[in-house]
Amino acid sequence: MKNHYPPIHSTPNPSDNITSLLGSISDTLNQSRYDITKLCAYLAASSSRVFVVGAGRSGIVLCAFANRLMHLGFTVVVVGETTSPPITTGDTLLVVSASGRTAFPLTCARKARDVGATVIAVLSDKSSPLAEVSHLVVSLDLASHEYPLGTLFETSAFLALEGILLSLAQTRGVCEIDMARRHTNLE
Amino acid sequence: MKNHYPPIHSTPNPSDNITSLLGSISDTLNQSRYDITKLCAYLAASSSRVFVVGAGRSGIVLCAFANRLMHLGFTVVVVGETTSPPITTGDTLLVVSASGRTAFPLTCARKARDVGATVIAVLSDKSSPLAEVSHLVVSLDLASHEYPLGTLFETSAFLALEGILLSLAQTRGVCEIDMARRHTNLE
Amino acid sequence: MKNHYPPIHSTPNPSDNITSLLGSISDTLNQSRYDITKLCAYLAASSSRVFVVGAGRSGIVLCAFANRLMHLGFTVVVVGETTSPPITTGDTLLVVSASGRTAFPLTCARKARDVGATVIAVLSDKSSPLAEVSHLVVSLDLASHEYPLGTLFETSAFLALEGILLSLAQTRGVCEIDMARRHTNLE
Amino acid sequence: MKNHYPPIHSTPNPSDNITSLLGSISDTLNQSRYDITKLCAYLAASSSRVFVVGAGRSGIVLCAFANRLMHLGFTVVVVGETTSPPITTGDTLLVVSASGRTAFPLTCARKARDVGATVIAVLSDKSSPLAEVSHLVVSLDLASHEYPLGTLFETSAFLALEGILLSLAQTRGVCEIDMARRHTNLE
Repeated sequence: MKNHYPPIHSTPNPSDNITSLLGSISDTLNQSRYDITKLCAYLAASSSRVFVVGAGRSGIVLCAFANRLMHLGFTVVVVGETTSPPITTGDTLLVVSASGRTAFPLTCARKARDVGATVIAVLSDKSSPLAEVSHLVVSLDLASHEYPLGTLFETSAFLALEGILLSLAQTRGVCEIDMARRHTNLE
Repeated sequence: MKNHYPPIHSTPNPSDNITSLLGSISDTLNQSRYDITKLCAYLAASSSRVFVVGAGRSGIVLCAFANRLMHLGFTVVVVGETTSPPITTGDTLLVVSASGRTAFPLTCARKARDVGATVIAVLSDKSSPLAEVSHLVVSLDLASHEYPLGTLFETSAFLALEGILLSLAQTRGVCEIDMARRHTNLE
Repeated sequence: MKNHYPPIHSTPNPSDNITSLLGSISDTLNQSRYDITKLCAYLAASSSRVFVVGAGRSGIVLCAFANRLMHLGFTVVVVGETTSPPITTGDTLLVVSASGRTAFPLTCARKARDVGATVIAVLSDKSSPLAEVSHLVVSLDLASHEYPLGTLFETSAFLALEGILLSLAQTRGVCEIDMARRHTNLE
Repeated sequence: MKNHYPPIHSTPNPSDNITSLLGSISDTLNQSRYDITKLCAYLAASSSRVFVVGAGRSGIVLCAFANRLMHLGFTVVVVGETTSPPITTGDTLLVVSASGRTAFPLTCARKARDVGATVIAVLSDKSSPLAEVSHLVVSLDLASHEYPLGTLFETSAFLALEGILLSLAQTRGVCEIDMARRHTNLE
């Protein structure tokens, strides 16, 4: 963790930061092409319910994914929401956690594995307990360490999942009208 | 809304979709540089409480922003969470809504304006009622219409807000250790 | 709204307050026996999806109901949660709102009615716009005005819904083991 | 856990269930008068921030408490909401868990104790690990086992907390107008 962020010479213009961040996301995800394709192929072939869990901003990124995945016709459960059913054999649990060590998502991953669900992790630390417990790991090797806390991990995970969603729409032949039909009309 | 998404020749590789999407986000945000800088400057100079509200994925993107903004030392309220206080004169309401017409965020914007709060909108439709009621508008002119539903708007809004957060950290001299100290220890 | 709550002679012992509150809840719900039975009979006979919406503590009470209703085998949707589908013909929307005038629940009720869903309201003001738009109204005539804000309404609504849940379990022959099987295993 | 709930002779009338449940809540809370008064006295004297955490319906009951406690002027944090700050020395963590063994609330209780916060538990099993880690325990000895799952625990906890809120309003001299002033105006 850096004591003096940012470097004294940096300019606080947001657009420069955006350009730099987009470049770092692109570099990060290019290194993880193979893992991302594997996750996409798994979901494309799967008819299982998809449970998602993550803490903080990783969990928030997963909510964006969950919402759109539902638009594509998947049955999706956000762990912790009011009417979440139990996870069981044949279900999939998708966990996003940079460290792979956050207590609650890790507890969920272990429980899910115990009951026979498939556990998939998007993480940064391949030697973490979450990596060990997971059947499929999407490892994001961060291309820069210039961003505070999980910024690069979370934004990269978000974009990786968006790319997967676009591919799933294509693979499954889900058009925009289908998605709109599944969008809530109470908001 | 397109009946046949995606075009028949497109390839379902997620990495190609990511590259394409990153390019479209970059193009979109380049056109909105001035608005993004204005929002950043406003927040940098402000000591007001920041309320955020949005529906669906726009609201989710705002949660990611709210969480990190709190790490920077701001007082942040996510409208609708359990202990949200009332908004009042001197507060700021940040609304994200592509259409600028979603019922609940628009109701909040009007109410906030009525009580003397500053209303800021990130939106796509500059002629919407939300644009009219807002004191400051960040207009995202989407650089492509190839993505289903709000995909390009939501990812662009997310990246715009991330760029602003990085600038705020720089402007306010908040280092990573300060942010980590404000991060929840119960997760 | 009372300026001087509570009367100067009242004792702040919580157990006395509990006794008094339980009595007032009982009095309130006794006056609404017929309406409560109607709602119970409707749900017992229904195989429709049940959407629930309410603001503040009314919405919280509905979450408790939604969770247990799911345990009983109903398909339940909490409006506003991440993967909520659209409401449509044949669905049921249950709204809890003392005033029957809170903006968002009322908007939902109108929209639900427009699309052909059945709208049910638990409310206190029978002349409210929510009462007008609803197909079935459970009116709670508060037996006391000694409690601040919605305390008596919210606790009475909670208990009314708990009584209904117990009856539904009985009517549908759902035993505790069935319910436990539907309880989340990730918490 | 009972295989055959309810007894074959029971009538499914919701009002009878309400009457019976109100009686059981009253019996349960009468046995816990001393513990409830202790918790009330603690909160009345405290100026610390109050964090709340619970799973499922116990967590929902805590949200209702958190919302009204905020109306009384307390600083309240619902663990897991978007902008929750870290808990630290001098803060209070209130946990509601019948079994005292649910993974996440228990993890939070241990962490809170480690950092020097005061841990308070409302629970049913006095020999649970949560009881052990807590500085103050409100033990609810359930007066009946006729209700499925946590029904009697959760409704009793809800009423106990409502009684405490009424006493706190009285002790602190908070009138209804004060509370209404702290109620959200965006809903």
